Order: sequence, then C-alpha cells, then structure tokens
Amino acid sequence: MAQYSLKLDGVFQALADPTRRAVVGRLGTGPASIGELAAPFEMALPSFMKHIRYLENTGWISTHKTGRVRTCTLERKSFDVIETWLSGQRSIWDGRTDRLGRFVTINAMETSE
Amino acid sequence: MAQYSLKLDGVFQALADPTRRAVVGRLGTGPASIGELAAPFEMALPSFMKHIRYLENTGWISTHKTGRVRTCTLERKSFDVIETWLSGQRSIWDGRTDRLGRFVTINAMETSE
Repeated sequence: MAQYSLKLDGVFQALADPTRRAVVGRLGTGPASIGELAAPFEMALPSFMKHIRYLENTGWISTHKTGRVRTCTLERKSFDVIETWLSGQRSIWDGRTDRLGRFVTINAMETSE
Repeated sequence: MAQYSLKLDGVFQALADPTRRAVVGRLGTGPASIGELAAPFEMALPSFMKHIRYLENTGWISTHKTGRVRTCTLERKSFDVIETWLSGQRSIWDGRTDRLGRFVTINAMETSE
C-alpha cells in the first residue's frame, strides 16, 4: 500500500511539468530518439535529460539504446494507474450519491404517508 | 494556453502527495471541517494547513468559514481538467492507431493484388 502510494506520488509528480507532459504527448504518437524529443525545447540537453530520467524512474517511459541513439517509448500502464485512482474517487462519490438518493427517497415516502 | 499549462501543473502537483490525495478522497464523501480532515493524520496543524491551502490554491477544494469552523468542499471540476488531459492523450493514440490500421489495410491490399 505504501509502495502504491509512492508510485502514485511519482506518476502525478511527473505530470506536474509542461516539458514532461509534452514528452508524454509526443511519445503517444510513437517512439522517438532523445534528439527528436529535445528538438522543440529551448533547453540545455542535461536539463532535458533530467526530465527524461524522471519519466523513466516514475514508469512513464522506457528507453532503449542502439549504437549511439537512445529511443524512448511510452509506457501506457501509467495511465492505468491514474484511471484506477480516478475510478476509485468516482466510486466514493457514487456511494455518496446512492446514500443521498436513498435519503431523498425515504424522506419523500415519509412525507407522502 | 500558458495559464492552462500552469493550471495543469498545479492540479497534478496537488495529487503528488498522499495526505492531499487522502483529503480529496475524504471530501468525496461530503464536506468536512478542518478538524475532521486533520484527525486521521499524525501531523502538526500548521503542516496540515499547508496541504489545505495548496488544495485550495490549485482549485481542488473550496473553504467556507462559519463562526470558528472552516468547512472544506471538494471542487469536482479539477477532475474534469484531468479527464480532459487524459482524453487528449487518448485521441493522440487513436490517431496513431488509425494510421497504423490504414497502413496495415493498404499493405494487406497490396500484398493480395
């Protein structure tokens, strides 16, 4: 549970940055090299690499080196982690809505008696 | 666009912490006072209040003070911000899948000619 919580911390933290979100978006169209990914950003390569490593450490991307080229691939399972969290929140609300619904129904019945 | 990006930074950053996620989850069951929200955490009140203010500043919750009691309410529209971002990512993939689908179809047609 603590490990899952730490994983969620990282998954969300990774998305709290515009450069990292842009990289995730670009990799949604298919794998790309570090050079291709860095091209649109006015950023020194070491700074850009920090973002790549952060995305890799938090499970958003995997990287693979062939010769001198490192290729990055999106790991879609991180989206599942978010979806699972979101659907957990939705069931909390639905539970609440159900209870509210029952409350309204019961009160309506009592009033009509 | 820059403002939307800053909003996304905050929305995701707010979720990158287990205390803040727990508060969001608790408020999913209905509004609660600061005292009720803080009770499950072994944390000094000033530290807990930092999390509350962060959630308020990033639009996750609203707070309302009556007498000496401050009540917090979940602002579900922050979930919409995440859902919109997620569905944007999905359309990127779907576009890719469509292109892949067409590629496979065209190549299958060429092979069968």
